[in-house]
Amino acid sequence: MDISLGEYLFARLAQLSVHSIFGVPGDFSLALLDTLPPTSRWVGNANELNAAYAADGYLRVTGLACLVTSFGSGELSALNGVAGAYAEHVALLHVVGVPSIAAQAKQLLRRHTLGNGDFTVFHRMAQNVAHTTAFLNDIRTAPAEIDRCIREAYLAQRPVYVGLPANLVAMRVPASRLAAPLDLTRAPNDSCTEHEVVAACIRLMRAAHAPVVVVDAGAARHGCKRIAARLVDATQFPVFVTPMGKGGVDEQHPRFGGVFVGTLSYPAVRAAVDAADLVLSIGGLMSDFSTSSFSYRFSTKNVVEFHADYVKVKTATYPGVQMKVCLEELLQTDSQGAQVSSLDPLGPLPQDYLWSRLGSWLREDDIVITETGTSAFGVIQTRFPDRTLGISQVLWGSVGFTVGATLGAVLAAEETDTTRRVILFVGDGSLQLTVQEISTMVRWGTKPYLFVMNNDGSTIDRLLHGNASYNDIQPWDNLALLPLFNAVNYETRRVSTPADVDVMFEDAGFANNDRIRMVEVMLPRMDAPLHLQGVEASLGESLEFVEL
Amino acid sequence: MDISLGEYLFARLAQLSVHSIFGVPGDFSLALLDTLPPTSRWVGNANELNAAYAADGYLRVTGLACLVTSFGSGELSALNGVAGAYAEHVALLHVVGVPSIAAQAKQLLRRHTLGNGDFTVFHRMAQNVAHTTAFLNDIRTAPAEIDRCIREAYLAQRPVYVGLPANLVAMRVPASRLAAPLDLTRAPNDSCTEHEVVAACIRLMRAAHAPVVVVDAGAARHGCKRIAARLVDATQFPVFVTPMGKGGVDEQHPRFGGVFVGTLSYPAVRAAVDAADLVLSIGGLMSDFSTSSFSYRFSTKNVVEFHADYVKVKTATYPGVQMKVCLEELLQTDSQGAQVSSLDPLGPLPQDYLWSRLGSWLREDDIVITETGTSAFGVIQTRFPDRTLGISQVLWGSVGFTVGATLGAVLAAEETDTTRRVILFVGDGSLQLTVQEISTMVRWGTKPYLFVMNNDGSTIDRLLHGNASYNDIQPWDNLALLPLFNAVNYETRRVSTPADVDVMFEDAGFANNDRIRMVEVMLPRMDAPLHLQGVEASLGESLEFVEL
Repeated sequence: MDISLGEYLFARLAQLSVHSIFGVPGDFSLALLDTLPPTSRWVGNANELNAAYAADGYLRVTGLACLVTSFGSGELSALNGVAGAYAEHVALLHVVGVPSIAAQAKQLLRRHTLGNGDFTVFHRMAQNVAHTTAFLNDIRTAPAEIDRCIREAYLAQRPVYVGLPANLVAMRVPASRLAAPLDLTRAPNDSCTEHEVVAACIRLMRAAHAPVVVVDAGAARHGCKRIAARLVDATQFPVFVTPMGKGGVDEQHPRFGGVFVGTLSYPAVRAAVDAADLVLSIGGLMSDFSTSSFSYRFSTKNVVEFHADYVKVKTATYPGVQMKVCLEELLQTDSQGAQVSSLDPLGPLPQDYLWSRLGSWLREDDIVITETGTSAFGVIQTRFPDRTLGISQVLWGSVGFTVGATLGAVLAAEETDTTRRVILFVGDGSLQLTVQEISTMVRWGTKPYLFVMNNDGSTIDRLLHGNASYNDIQPWDNLALLPLFNAVNYETRRVSTPADVDVMFEDAGFANNDRIRMVEVMLPRMDAPLHLQGVEASLGESLEFVEL
Repeated sequence: MDISLGEYLFARLAQLSVHSIFGVPGDFSLALLDTLPPTSRWVGNANELNAAYAADGYLRVTGLACLVTSFGSGELSALNGVAGAYAEHVALLHVVGVPSIAAQAKQLLRRHTLGNGDFTVFHRMAQNVAHTTAFLNDIRTAPAEIDRCIREAYLAQRPVYVGLPANLVAMRVPASRLAAPLDLTRAPNDSCTEHEVVAACIRLMRAAHAPVVVVDAGAARHGCKRIAARLVDATQFPVFVTPMGKGGVDEQHPRFGGVFVGTLSYPAVRAAVDAADLVLSIGGLMSDFSTSSFSYRFSTKNVVEFHADYVKVKTATYPGVQMKVCLEELLQTDSQGAQVSSLDPLGPLPQDYLWSRLGSWLREDDIVITETGTSAFGVIQTRFPDRTLGISQVLWGSVGFTVGATLGAVLAAEETDTTRRVILFVGDGSLQLTVQEISTMVRWGTKPYLFVMNNDGSTIDRLLHGNASYNDIQPWDNLALLPLFNAVNYETRRVSTPADVDVMFEDAGFANNDRIRMVEVMLPRMDAPLHLQGVEASLGESLEFVEL
């Protein structure tokens, strides 16, 4: 039995629960799409950048996603989305349909090239934002190369680029390779080094009077949410989460201390972390937004950083020690606690009211997606139920990301559980960059909640940089979008007051994700969530990018 | 008197009639935007890729445009548009607001970076699609560097990248530099070489029995439309235009022979060019779409290619000989003619009817923008009035380009003449990639004609690659777009029959561009213009990208 190389690729992806493929058809990817089996779904996005965002949203649910674009203009349009996946450490397999080997050799083709016969320039550009790349040119080695690329993307949680010449995709390869699933295990930790790390950790933990655990995005990316929770249970150390890691710990846990945003944290959170004499940092990916300033450092020098493939104890780095295995061993130690006082919410502002109230409406397993800016700051106040998945592109911060990511996340969620809710919060300004992906949500009959925060322009930029007219946007009739995109079974509503919010969140029908919904949340023009007002307050102080 | 560096940049651009600046505000470009003088306009696009397309449309009217984006995600989102400007030889100044020199040196900032402290990666990526670049770091040399970049973009008609640290833009520079306008003249041709070229041309022209002139896009880019017209007048040689060069010659001229599309040309056009024993090619930028196949060659070996900065006579290349000056000298020679029969239109199909009928409705100075695919092929049949400007991204072929380009072109046109009409033809599928830029057209009160060719998906891809479901799109209520974007003074109409088209084109009110208009043209699903059916007919024959 043999199958085409394209079928081989999609079969490998299906083995890893990747059943939806994202992208826009283009000249050089059509042949590949013709090999897509009926058990996989070609999503068909509105543009390539949106497709990359959607794939990113999908993989944050499944752990891996595949984006297919076409040579030249197609792949370049997706590049910002791929760079975001690189910055944020997620596993995006980017398959680019490229011209046939014969056409490349003859340098004959000119369309979608720069007109200079150079077929390698886009591959070279992609290498800057890829963990590894392959530019296939031999059918005999192609299946092994595909296996290598998928494996490396998965293990590194980074984008990988595969150039796939159109003449190869229909060629036959042995199906027997598929009988053995991909080996996604890492080489084991060197046991001597691991013992040394664990011994050092235990010494620090026993000596500490006020230890804390800080969970960042890397914990979820590398499958360490459960082990982090078990570490907290075992040690009873207070646990904090970064904005980027939000959803990575159970916020109902009695030891949950809050969201750590550096100097912009609630005072009690900041005090607790500053007072710590040991920080166990799990999956740390610090950015200026997630930590609120560049001068951010833990007060203590006793910091242990657990990463996917190394551990750092104070200033010593131990390459090759994987956190997952290392944390398992560490769990043999005793516990030691310190109580952090629960946080008092401040007096409600309209936005703050929404964010606080949201917590009671959320359910376990909900997926909450918040756009960089107002929404990502606001949701810090929302206490998540256990197993809530939070998605926010905090580090890369590409505006409009979440509309695409919502499409990907809702497709992934509905593939396994149609009752799992996907809830987007996006500003009216950010929405305008990627709005057409709502059309793709309609096309596939998905049922997300789309909250559009209408504050008449970009509040975050106004706060960061004054009230200049370049932050104004053209106002849209947002609630007309779903009918324009030919949605049939949908609901729209507009909420303007706390009472509106109460009615909405108390409506049992509304809580049931049986149709696509858009809620336009009308906010005062310069209103902002609590933490974002902190950004304003620290203008010219710690946020260097403001005072540039 | 001194001014800020930002004011200096915008003043230089204004001296070259660049009064509209395209882009999306971002963290590192805000400081630059604060220096924009009230005499210039910040357009404020819906996303960066659309902004690049719009800048491209603007510069095809003015000769130069400026795109401002922000470090990281902003600039990468625009990259496909910049690559298109590189492939198509147009002068796009891409100014990227980058972090302050201090932040770069300290490698402190992390947002919008890849998280690895590398601030140069995006600049390196941009170098692949730029004629030259500058990454400014010294206020003393910055004005001269800006001058160099603008000059090189203009003369090379290629994109140029300028990285502008946010801390430099408010620093003061001498205003006195602005008193001397930029020198945009090239070094003169070497007169000996030029005489040799001209002598060789004249020998070939005198010996030829059936000479022809073929005008491509480079003629308009480098200001050689008038001189090409004078050459035709003087020699009475028949003149043909390529699809990419359309609008570069007066199609009402008695010597106009038609549009040369290689093997897809009308038979009479193909026969005339094949029979030629001398081809004077002016501004040639051949692509597979504009010439219809890779095997395309002129039958004769007697080809003289005139380019911006070199001339090629048969196999001899003369670097540094500029076509404009060289053609002036050549005009001293005598004329010699050959008559080409006028072309008979074939029997009307619905699309063909529209394209043919369009010619009678067009006026001198109209700007006609056609999306790659159905529209770019269809408009080949339309006979343009003199001084019609045709815009189509034939070589790079990025889908959705024209919606952005229409915004740029209509802003540029209305800056000098509000009665000048800008007319877009875009497919319903292509529209979905960049639709939000219509919102920016509404915001600025522009008055373009937007013809949406609704054939329920991508006809060109169906023709090229069968009727697969991945070519289907979500149908939209397109005529609801203008009210959704809050247009006030607008007109929509839907035409479905030849009679509808006649009524529309005979309506004097419709011909008056006093409001923004959208016309949805309802077409049979698999209908295609004549030349595109030619593509289908040559499947597996000459179009290698089809048979990959």
